Amino acid sequence: MTMRTLLLLSSALLIGAAPAKKLLTPTDIVNGAPSAAWKTIPADDLLVMDLKSGARVVVQLAPMFAPVHVANIKALARSSYWDGATIYRVQDNYVAQWGLNDSDKPWPAGVTAKPPAEYTRPFKGLSIKPLGYADPYAPGTGFADGWPIAYSSKSGWANLAHCYATVGVGRNLSPDTGTGGELYAIIGQPTRHMDRNLAVVGRVIDGIDRLSSLPRGTEALGFYKDKADYVPITSIRLASQMTAAGRPSYEYLDTASASFARYIRVRANRHDDFYTRPAGGVDLCNVQVPVRKKT
Amino acid sequence: MTMRTLLLLSSALLIGAAPAKKLLTPTDIVNGAPSAAWKTIPADDLLVMDLKSGARVVVQLAPMFAPVHVANIKALARSSYWDGATIYRVQDNYVAQWGLNDSDKPWPAGVTAKPPAEYTRPFKGLSIKPLGYADPYAPGTGFADGWPIAYSSKSGWANLAHCYATVGVGRNLSPDTGTGGELYAIIGQPTRHMDRNLAVVGRVIDGIDRLSSLPRGTEALGFYKDKADYVPITSIRLASQMTAAGRPSYEYLDTASASFARYIRVRANRHDDFYTRPAGGVDLCNVQVPVRKKT
Repeated sequence: MTMRTLLLLSSALLIGAAPAKKLLTPTDIVNGAPSAAWKTIPADDLLVMDLKSGARVVVQLAPMFAPVHVANIKALARSSYWDGATIYRVQDNYVAQWGLNDSDKPWPAGVTAKPPAEYTRPFKGLSIKPLGYADPYAPGTGFADGWPIAYSSKSGWANLAHCYATVGVGRNLSPDTGTGGELYAIIGQPTRHMDRNLAVVGRVIDGIDRLSSLPRGTEALGFYKDKADYVPITSIRLASQMTAAGRPSYEYLDTASASFARYIRVRANRHDDFYTRPAGGVDLCNVQVPVRKKT
Repeated sequence: MTMRTLLLLSSALLIGAAPAKKLLTPTDIVNGAPSAAWKTIPADDLLVMDLKSGARVVVQLAPMFAPVHVANIKALARSSYWDGATIYRVQDNYVAQWGLNDSDKPWPAGVTAKPPAEYTRPFKGLSIKPLGYADPYAPGTGFADGWPIAYSSKSGWANLAHCYATVGVGRNLSPDTGTGGELYAIIGQPTRHMDRNLAVVGRVIDGIDRLSSLPRGTEALGFYKDKADYVPITSIRLASQMTAAGRPSYEYLDTASASFARYIRVRANRHDDFYTRPAGGVDLCNVQVPVRKKT
């Protein structure tokens, strides 16, 4: 009824004086994590997309999951391949998609035109913090180097999971795997059925709201009807291409840290002033790895 | 690369000539369901919200899960309580919230000012189609009378799950349960940790994209900073208050039908021209119950 209605529903903030016995929120855990628990994201793994509107969207790339596709994306950024790119598809509860669309612009040097199907990677070699709760899509889920993953230790595969803000490579029908010129970001419910069927290359770590709040396309599958509706992109480049002073920098909470383990526990058992019945579990995609801007 | 990139990623459509051996998509199942498998939603369970922009948002109410809160909402609609209401909060990957906000308008006759905590209902009395896949939040999940639910047959509770487009009642700290004057809709990932902590009263069955594409509020928790940013609502009324000729009508696929059982199986095992690795499972919220407009 009042301005404070639902105020405490969010995980983003907890305002107010500390009560006598304070039950920690996820935000409390994150704010209390020591600086040693934070890891800086390399500038060469940050894809910075500036829209003509002035909005900025930053993607953290995941070379350890789709090395050839990510190498392609870096080569495309360095060669200014995306000059004139637009966001041309926004489908509700699904994806926003951008690139040159319908273009026959040749691939620049350094791009593998037909990459392998990097839909999974070997389980071996990953250092995993298991989530420890049931998942309908995979035998195991957890976190490796800051990424939410699904895996089968028995079958030996692992994949970066399709959660809110996950970024993947658009493709046509198999055996095409997409080159990396057209990218999508998830703007709705996790689309875990896409796991192991597409190449996932990273996640939006800043500005996902600029994509999720775009008008939905009215054509089939959310394509914009008129080219006039396409959302113009001024530039897509790596942070490493920008001056050291001008580039943004981010860090994420180390998923192998004690702070992150506590963060999972509290996420699975919300029990503060607002929540009276802890769930006793949590979905992989709802344990969003904390990422923050370095100042 | 081309216009068709990602075209087949959607569950919404499958275009093209039928291949020799056709693997059915979820849409194929829905389109092929006999008319007997569809159930009409009563006009008295449809809350029709018209925005000043001309957009319409329609909520299907769920009296079987939160009877007192839903009765309140119906009384509020019938008494034009929401005259002057707005959408005043849009938090990315979380909720859009509407009502009179900060108002001290008295409750009209027929409204229970302090309803009971209808966060769950008895498991007994529900006819459930179990989903049959693991869930991190509850011992059981499935569908009852068209609604996605979580439950414990052992402990005897069931609740309407917080999925994309689920509508619930804003409240302050417990023991307040909210009256129904302020409502929220989920516009991002499922917020299943809210299950059993809030009164769920229904779901948006038409126009959720009009809420999810609104600009995000810049204040804490997504509240709009200036009242000038509030999104004006022209009217909120029940379809049963409209003329029979002028009211919208909807039907949903009976979740007890053979068609719906097939639909679940295909959702859990996408295996058509686009998907090469079926998941073998599906999340409760990703089995969206088909709802369509009756013409």
